[in-house]
Amino acid sequence: MTSNTVLKFRELGKKIVAVGRNYKEHAAELGNAVPTKPILFLKPTTSYVTQGHNIKIPPSCKSLHHEVELGIVIGKTGSQITEERAGDHIGGYVLALDMTARDLQDEAKKKGHPWTLAKGFDTSCPIGDVISKENLPNPGNVQLWLKVNGETKQDGNTKDMIFSIPFLISYISKYFTLEEGDVILTGTPSGVGPVDKGDVIDAGIGEISSFRFKVE
Amino acid sequence: MTSNTVLKFRELGKKIVAVGRNYKEHAAELGNAVPTKPILFLKPTTSYVTQGHNIKIPPSCKSLHHEVELGIVIGKTGSQITEERAGDHIGGYVLALDMTARDLQDEAKKKGHPWTLAKGFDTSCPIGDVISKENLPNPGNVQLWLKVNGETKQDGNTKDMIFSIPFLISYISKYFTLEEGDVILTGTPSGVGPVDKGDVIDAGIGEISSFRFKVE
Ligand SMILES: [Mg+2]
Ligand SMILES: [Mg+2]
Ligand SMILES: [Mg+2]
Repeated sequence: MTSNTVLKFRELGKKIVAVGRNYKEHAAELGNAVPTKPILFLKPTTSYVTQGHNIKIPPSCKSLHHEVELGIVIGKTGSQITEERAGDHIGGYVLALDMTARDLQDEAKKKGHPWTLAKGFDTSCPIGDVISKENLPNPGNVQLWLKVNGETKQDGNTKDMIFSIPFLISYISKYFTLEEGDVILTGTPSGVGPVDKGDVIDAGIGEISSFRFKVE
Repeated sequence: MTSNTVLKFRELGKKIVAVGRNYKEHAAELGNAVPTKPILFLKPTTSYVTQGHNIKIPPSCKSLHHEVELGIVIGKTGSQITEERAGDHIGGYVLALDMTARDLQDEAKKKGHPWTLAKGFDTSCPIGDVISKENLPNPGNVQLWLKVNGETKQDGNTKDMIFSIPFLISYISKYFTLEEGDVILTGTPSGVGPVDKGDVIDAGIGEISSFRFKVE
């Protein structure tokens, strides 16, 4: 059974922990090395945007990229979680986009600055409704796809993650207590690219969950 | 009057937006350029730790630094806040430490990675009780001090901030909606340095607020 906090994670959750470069082909397409440990960053919950509302391009961004990702909604608070017990802390799953101001991120990377502006602006996390664990029995082997104006841009499978879901939960919880309602974004497969004002993004997790967002 | 959400910001707030290098002498002491716009990063609310509990050194950190900072507690939700209206969004102030795994941050800066692990681990934000606006009428001209084992390490004044409090609120809210209960950490004056297991940190805002934390 899915708890109220999990169902209402967008209002009640407090953080989004996102993983960078968790798919080899995506690391390669941006010219980055394949990481030897997870690259973590935070998005604030004010970045959530739900269907019916638009994605907005943040100030001074000239290259807003889409990244489709599988999200994990934490169902049980914990820290120092072992990989073996990670499943107990999963409350459900969610389809999400990790919208990224790529030019601001590139500038941050060059200067050794935090990624926060590039990753955390308002509407940078379009998100769907919770998918129960029963409805996604095999999160480690499911298709993640994204189309821009009807054209397929991303079409990957979560089996190609570098770091598995149990590993990520365990690793993250060594540093950050994971609270019920928090979300982990598990990284994006290859095919990321820019969107412009007026573009329409459709994305989905196999045929289990999908959504549409417009860029304004 | 201070609202319940402001008084209980540690339980009810959702994000901590922190500002890097907001004092010239501190930028210089770490060999960094003086920024031309605010450097922003996030700490999760799971990083809060209150008096009576200890600061813990996170896994693989060999150089944990203290940074004493003036925190602003947001009292009224808003985005696109003008500098002129910034004061309306302040619910109170708070003494805070932005504990930093300096070695992890240095590694992140070198690789162009996010600062999140270095800045957001559990207990990385020791924090006091809310100071009402009445009790801190001049937040832009107040002493920030910190001692380790009784020896003064930091002793600066908020008048030396590069970016003022109204400017920071306005700038941050261009990107991130600021919600009631959120906290802005406004940066640290010079004198940062390492602490070890067993060290005792005393810190304060003038004689208005002070606290003590032990490193375990
Ligand atoms: Mg991503
Ligand atoms: Mg960051
Ligand atoms: Mg700081």
